[in-house]
Amino acid sequence: MAPTDSPPPVLTRPTLLARRNVAQSELFAIESLDLRFANGAERTFERLKGKGRGAVMLVAMPDPDHVLLIREYAAGFDEYTLTLPKGLVDPGEDIITAANRELMEECGYGANRIEPLVELSLAPNYMNHRIQVMLASDLYEKRLEGDEPEPLIVETYAIDDISGLLARDDFHEGRAIAALFIAREKLRSEQTSGSWW
Amino acid sequence: MAPTDSPPPVLTRPTLLARRNVAQSELFAIESLDLRFANGAERTFERLKGKGRGAVMLVAMPDPDHVLLIREYAAGFDEYTLTLPKGLVDPGEDIITAANRELMEECGYGANRIEPLVELSLAPNYMNHRIQVMLASDLYEKRLEGDEPEPLIVETYAIDDISGLLARDDFHEGRAIAALFIAREKLRSEQTSGSWW
Repeated sequence: MAPTDSPPPVLTRPTLLARRNVAQSELFAIESLDLRFANGAERTFERLKGKGRGAVMLVAMPDPDHVLLIREYAAGFDEYTLTLPKGLVDPGEDIITAANRELMEECGYGANRIEPLVELSLAPNYMNHRIQVMLASDLYEKRLEGDEPEPLIVETYAIDDISGLLARDDFHEGRAIAALFIAREKLRSEQTSGSWW
Repeated sequence: MAPTDSPPPVLTRPTLLARRNVAQSELFAIESLDLRFANGAERTFERLKGKGRGAVMLVAMPDPDHVLLIREYAAGFDEYTLTLPKGLVDPGEDIITAANRELMEECGYGANRIEPLVELSLAPNYMNHRIQVMLASDLYEKRLEGDEPEPLIVETYAIDDISGLLARDDFHEGRAIAALFIAREKLRSEQTSGSWW
């Protein structure tokens, strides 16, 4: 089986026959789509509607070898889990300002250097949520009040020991794991060229 | 700032004051939770309720250097995106059987060797969804009919070139990216010890 190196095939997206709002809560809105695919097959799909606000996740490094993780209550699991700081972009806010604000609210630090790392989707079959992952460094102490019900616990881990994190049972969020690997790749490649630290 | 190597703090989970079903569609169910945190703060959180069925995602390798990706219509984005084969575990099905069935349905291959790699969560603050990622190898051609509206396009990529995949604009699902990095780590560490291929 040969590796694929040809350009992606041109695919015809299905035709939207009908769209209905089927359920709504404070936080979530669900719509159903009646779709006709190029081959004539018809299906009804449901998806969560986004609010159109961006989201941001931070790989924040207090020094060249470590990253900040937060321990917070995750209502979906009814457990405290370990993950990267993240949050929604406020209306009118740019992504860098949002990233710095979340870092101040959740970790008690600001960053003099923030740069985009990657944009990740959550479950593209069922929602259009995307999150912009930012690499933050040159940190300084500064705390802003957030809307958290209780202070988050901030912990510091070696970015080279992702395997150690994965061996824990409280660190499992796919996007956070992807973000750490991508940050580590970037740091390693830039260490070689000497351009990061 | 020293790295954290102490055991995780013992945290008291919030008390559930009330739980209500607030919205329901064919696919999704939403509930709200009134919670009182240990410090007395009260909040209402919403979360998606899972159906309690497991899910499985596959890193399937036709040879020691390549991995199979599928190109499918993602309704959340109204776009064709590139991701790993995955699906729900059927009632009564074990995880290995489910993984092999999904591989046959989505890629036209079965696997003589399937082993667990990692369990990933999606968005633990808002849902309890988890997916078991499996590493599949020693593939053979076998196709099962699935419920896809149109055949998925199967493409083969070098597992060493995750950076090349990330540079594309159609490969962005956090869980799939995490799964590829974790598979690559495992393969590299086992190449060293000679235990995988």
